[in-house]
Amino acid sequence: MTGDAHPMWLPDEVWRPLGSRRVLLAADPDDVVVRTVHDELTRATSRWGGSVTVADEQTSADEHDVVLEVASHAAAPGTIAAGAPLQDGMFGIGRPTGVTTVLAAPGAALLYGLHALVRQGEAAFVGNDELLWDLPSQPVRMLDHWDNVDVHDVMGQVERGYAGGSIFYEDGRLRDDLSRAEAYARLLGSVGINAVGLNNVNVHRTEARLLTDRLPDVVRLAEVFRPHGIRVHLSVSFAAPMTVGGLATSDPLDADVQRWWSDRAADVYAAIPDFGGFVVKADSEGQPGPFAYGRDHADGANLLARALKPFGGTVFWRAFVYDHQQDWRDRSTDRARAAYDHFSPLDGAFDDNVVLQVKYGPMDFQVREPVSPVIAAMPTTRLAVELQVTQEYTGQQQHAVWLGPQWSQVLRFEPWADGRTVSDIAAGLGAEAAPSGGIVAVSNVGADEFWTGHPLAQANLYTFARLAWDPTADATTILDEWIGLTFGNGPRAALHAVLDDSWLTYERYSSPLGVGFMVRPGHHYGPDVDGYEYTPWGTYHFADRDGAGVDRTRATGTGYTGQYPPPWRDVYESLESCPDELLLFFHHVPYGHVLHSGVTVIQHIYDTHFAGAEQAEAMASAWADAHGRVPDDVFERVTQRLAEQVRCAHEWRDQVTTYFHRKSGVPDAHGRRIY
Amino acid sequence: MTGDAHPMWLPDEVWRPLGSRRVLLAADPDDVVVRTVHDELTRATSRWGGSVTVADEQTSADEHDVVLEVASHAAAPGTIAAGAPLQDGMFGIGRPTGVTTVLAAPGAALLYGLHALVRQGEAAFVGNDELLWDLPSQPVRMLDHWDNVDVHDVMGQVERGYAGGSIFYEDGRLRDDLSRAEAYARLLGSVGINAVGLNNVNVHRTEARLLTDRLPDVVRLAEVFRPHGIRVHLSVSFAAPMTVGGLATSDPLDADVQRWWSDRAADVYAAIPDFGGFVVKADSEGQPGPFAYGRDHADGANLLARALKPFGGTVFWRAFVYDHQQDWRDRSTDRARAAYDHFSPLDGAFDDNVVLQVKYGPMDFQVREPVSPVIAAMPTTRLAVELQVTQEYTGQQQHAVWLGPQWSQVLRFEPWADGRTVSDIAAGLGAEAAPSGGIVAVSNVGADEFWTGHPLAQANLYTFARLAWDPTADATTILDEWIGLTFGNGPRAALHAVLDDSWLTYERYSSPLGVGFMVRPGHHYGPDVDGYEYTPWGTYHFADRDGAGVDRTRATGTGYTGQYPPPWRDVYESLESCPDELLLFFHHVPYGHVLHSGVTVIQHIYDTHFAGAEQAEAMASAWADAHGRVPDDVFERVTQRLAEQVRCAHEWRDQVTTYFHRKSGVPDAHGRRIY
Repeated sequence: MTGDAHPMWLPDEVWRPLGSRRVLLAADPDDVVVRTVHDELTRATSRWGGSVTVADEQTSADEHDVVLEVASHAAAPGTIAAGAPLQDGMFGIGRPTGVTTVLAAPGAALLYGLHALVRQGEAAFVGNDELLWDLPSQPVRMLDHWDNVDVHDVMGQVERGYAGGSIFYEDGRLRDDLSRAEAYARLLGSVGINAVGLNNVNVHRTEARLLTDRLPDVVRLAEVFRPHGIRVHLSVSFAAPMTVGGLATSDPLDADVQRWWSDRAADVYAAIPDFGGFVVKADSEGQPGPFAYGRDHADGANLLARALKPFGGTVFWRAFVYDHQQDWRDRSTDRARAAYDHFSPLDGAFDDNVVLQVKYGPMDFQVREPVSPVIAAMPTTRLAVELQVTQEYTGQQQHAVWLGPQWSQVLRFEPWADGRTVSDIAAGLGAEAAPSGGIVAVSNVGADEFWTGHPLAQANLYTFARLAWDPTADATTILDEWIGLTFGNGPRAALHAVLDDSWLTYERYSSPLGVGFMVRPGHHYGPDVDGYEYTPWGTYHFADRDGAGVDRTRATGTGYTGQYPPPWRDVYESLESCPDELLLFFHHVPYGHVLHSGVTVIQHIYDTHFAGAEQAEAMASAWADAHGRVPDDVFERVTQRLAEQVRCAHEWRDQVTTYFHRKSGVPDAHGRRIY
Repeated sequence: MTGDAHPMWLPDEVWRPLGSRRVLLAADPDDVVVRTVHDELTRATSRWGGSVTVADEQTSADEHDVVLEVASHAAAPGTIAAGAPLQDGMFGIGRPTGVTTVLAAPGAALLYGLHALVRQGEAAFVGNDELLWDLPSQPVRMLDHWDNVDVHDVMGQVERGYAGGSIFYEDGRLRDDLSRAEAYARLLGSVGINAVGLNNVNVHRTEARLLTDRLPDVVRLAEVFRPHGIRVHLSVSFAAPMTVGGLATSDPLDADVQRWWSDRAADVYAAIPDFGGFVVKADSEGQPGPFAYGRDHADGANLLARALKPFGGTVFWRAFVYDHQQDWRDRSTDRARAAYDHFSPLDGAFDDNVVLQVKYGPMDFQVREPVSPVIAAMPTTRLAVELQVTQEYTGQQQHAVWLGPQWSQVLRFEPWADGRTVSDIAAGLGAEAAPSGGIVAVSNVGADEFWTGHPLAQANLYTFARLAWDPTADATTILDEWIGLTFGNGPRAALHAVLDDSWLTYERYSSPLGVGFMVRPGHHYGPDVDGYEYTPWGTYHFADRDGAGVDRTRATGTGYTGQYPPPWRDVYESLESCPDELLLFFHHVPYGHVLHSGVTVIQHIYDTHFAGAEQAEAMASAWADAHGRVPDDVFERVTQRLAEQVRCAHEWRDQVTTYFHRKSGVPDAHGRRIY
């Protein structure tokens, strides 16, 4: 099915425990997801010598080792009461009668239960446990694809894609052979992803027509994803009524525009009854939006929401709106403030099928940012938190950077320090909260044989999906699960040595103390300390001979700290309480400022960069131990990329230390080589 | 003939004095250049009411106002003796018998005489002057085109082209309609250009085939240029025997390779008997070359020279060779040294139909560089000096930057301070000198309606051609001539106000004191002080909190000063004698270093940048005075570009002053705004 592509976390071996047993499937065999489960069981049992039976009235569970059953209510007591209704996606696994049983809600839950069973391996076939219930933290667990149909002049086939071409599109059209997309859908369904965006949020000419004459392409992709419980979504252009529809305006209050969108929604749902909805980047980085007509983002989002409403569709409206033509001389404008300033006044103005999709930080997927204040600012708006699995600013899948700890930290962050977390907000938990928006990320896959360019970047895709299912899960446990599924026990120690601390390692050798960027403009790979310093993008560090950092305090700076509720508005405001790792994000300080860690800012810059580069070297050394414990092609690819990571980490170290040494004149306390 | 394109310096009006008179043409009407002269005369006299007669035995000169005649020897005394042989390109103009007479050597000289007459206007028809003789300073006056046949992914249709598409190529092939190329050939011929390179020195796949199956395209272009006395040349790839010819090697000592090139030369000359030769960029910025086979540049150049020799062709071998993958940490490698280090040991090793084509400075067409030491280092090698008419590093035809003074300064530079100039070396003057190589430049024209994007950039094309003809000419006089021909007297003052000082203005607001670069990497437009500072390109300023500049002294630096003969090796070596404008090219000095001008380096940086930006504003103001004195479309285009120049000059001023203020901490003595 996957051609020559790597099997990711579903190699044949993981199917052995289940595939070698007698399986009973008690579910409607005509259901699209049940068919998928049946196909998986057939394949696994064919491979490993077991059997699969579809239950009918004569079938007895006693003759089987495993029963997978769909039910609308809990049949027997377990971790929920007997008779309790099963929520969407919910399933229980246990051996209450000595037979391994999966009881799942209608829909995709049976698939989730199947794969939970697979992940348990032989452990699922011992003991006499009651049913242990599981369900997703929230209804939307989504991956957005930044794939272009036409190769873009600058951004290529996949914008911010580091894994080859698109698995969907090639040569300006949908691929004839969608076997890679099918394999991908299977992988996503196995870890509970239930929504995908099919095209880049920067919607170009050809991609805008996915909504009209290229709709048959979307139908084909919907058929690929549907068997795995995944609904497809389209990124749309706010200007489509003009550029595609030939209208004179895209004004959201114009009746013809409203009718145009309603007609398009009707067309799409006639072809794809389970279509998910639209993803929209509007009035952002040159994309069209409602501002052109003096309308606000609620006007814009509600226009699309009302077109989708009759069909049950959702608008994912991105909050990534800021002035990308800022004057670097103007220190009063603060890009970090922009999303809050634009959106918080609109809380309550969005229709109930609008989800505001908020990047986790106020800037743009940096290795370290504070959590976006928008997330706490819109209690009556459905919010989705957006993460970036594709490593735009974190080494572009040339560097092994496992982002699980970053995401875990974001999702567990408590905006009011009162126990309510970011993931709770996304999940719509709480008495007066808006309904759930979901957890979304930008995918990192491509036509590369390992899917993700760097084979170890598969861990990010897996970890994202599992955290979206359960944001309270321990990230390192998820990583360990991924290692076991993908590679077995052999390289477990080597992989932990390479990946566990890799996010912090990347942070150490790249931009320091939360200040961000310092990357090469345009492509964003590798260091360029002043690369964005005198540009219109609003991403500055303001380093001079005396100090560095951005003063975002209320007292003397841009006032950004005031966008947070207590206690963070005060924690970040104060030099005494601001966490070291975000110091230069919130404050401009002299190089001699002493961190809580006890060293000065300048010495911290030196120390972390030398340490980060050394850690990159240690990662490469640790990987040598995986030789013979992973397939040779994986070993070679990872070895090559680690060599590049070491080279690039040295480049980061030398450029950053040299830059700050030339500016500060302060020698390294340890006398290391600075150029 | 030029369609809707601007007539440049040949508007109808300039033909009035000649076109309104009775002209006698005494030359072989079947000669290709004589036909061109006849066509010009026919057109001019039709337009302005005169007449043209081709002389036969019955014709009397007395019945005509002007005689144009071809002769091999001077018929009567003038500024040369009667009977003296006329050299190639030589012509005399005068009224020794009261009839305006042009006497020209065979070949293109008659065309040059015709246009000299046109430039004189009515003044050619008064007085009784003896023949005043003129001839070109050197036999090769060449423009290289960096046009690609296929649009290049990064570099586009014309590499470093700022004037739209190519007038030769479009959509991956030669244009069907070559009327713009014909108009261009006419313009070049009118100012004495006699050689063109037809394609980019970075030779890509398609362009390599101009030598083989695309040769018919070259034939068509040769037919376009031939009537104007211009020989065509091709840039060729050193790897062509492999990439085009299918051989296993391109080793210059390989007999098959030698035969392949000889066969290609024979093919080309069979189709184009007056083909000029090859232009070669080898072992430079990724282009293939002889180093791959352990051969040197003489081996490489002589390989091609021997193929061309039987047909009278020339190899223009570029000396622009350096390590473009240098480690910025390594201060011992100095890109400025590279051409001398590579080539000076090879003096004497090149065949006599090899011309070494040397960029005027050791780096790459910066606004200010010292003259390349290669020019004085190879007395037995034919040398061509290469200038850049296209404004890659000088505002890209968005900025009005007239480069006449820069080129004049370069061509008049005396490498030994003994009266022998750079142009003398190019011209092969001197008892023991190698024969002339020529003067070459990269063209700035494109399919733009004004040819050069910025209409005033036409002045650079004109000035280059006229300086190539006579490097001792006064640049401002040439500019004045261009103004008169192109626009007449009306806007003369405004144009001088805009252009006369524009080179120095650009220097003031861009990189200071000869240090160079500080441009945005890749496209090279606009400021980025650290843009190339940590890159492999060898172009650094080494600014830190204490000072800036590159130590290229023998005493403590890279030793580059030692590549010059006396007195320059000592003038540049010493802080006391090094000219201010080259100080940071040769020395790393503290910001407090006092220049000969009496101000410190840091204050000079502030002063020049504020002054440069003010001068850009003054240029825009001065241009307002041209309103109604130039055609409206010219006025509008120039007005728009001056606005962009002012914006960009402000950006340069603010980025450079802010950068150095942040580094040095020294306040501006005049308290001006620094960010």
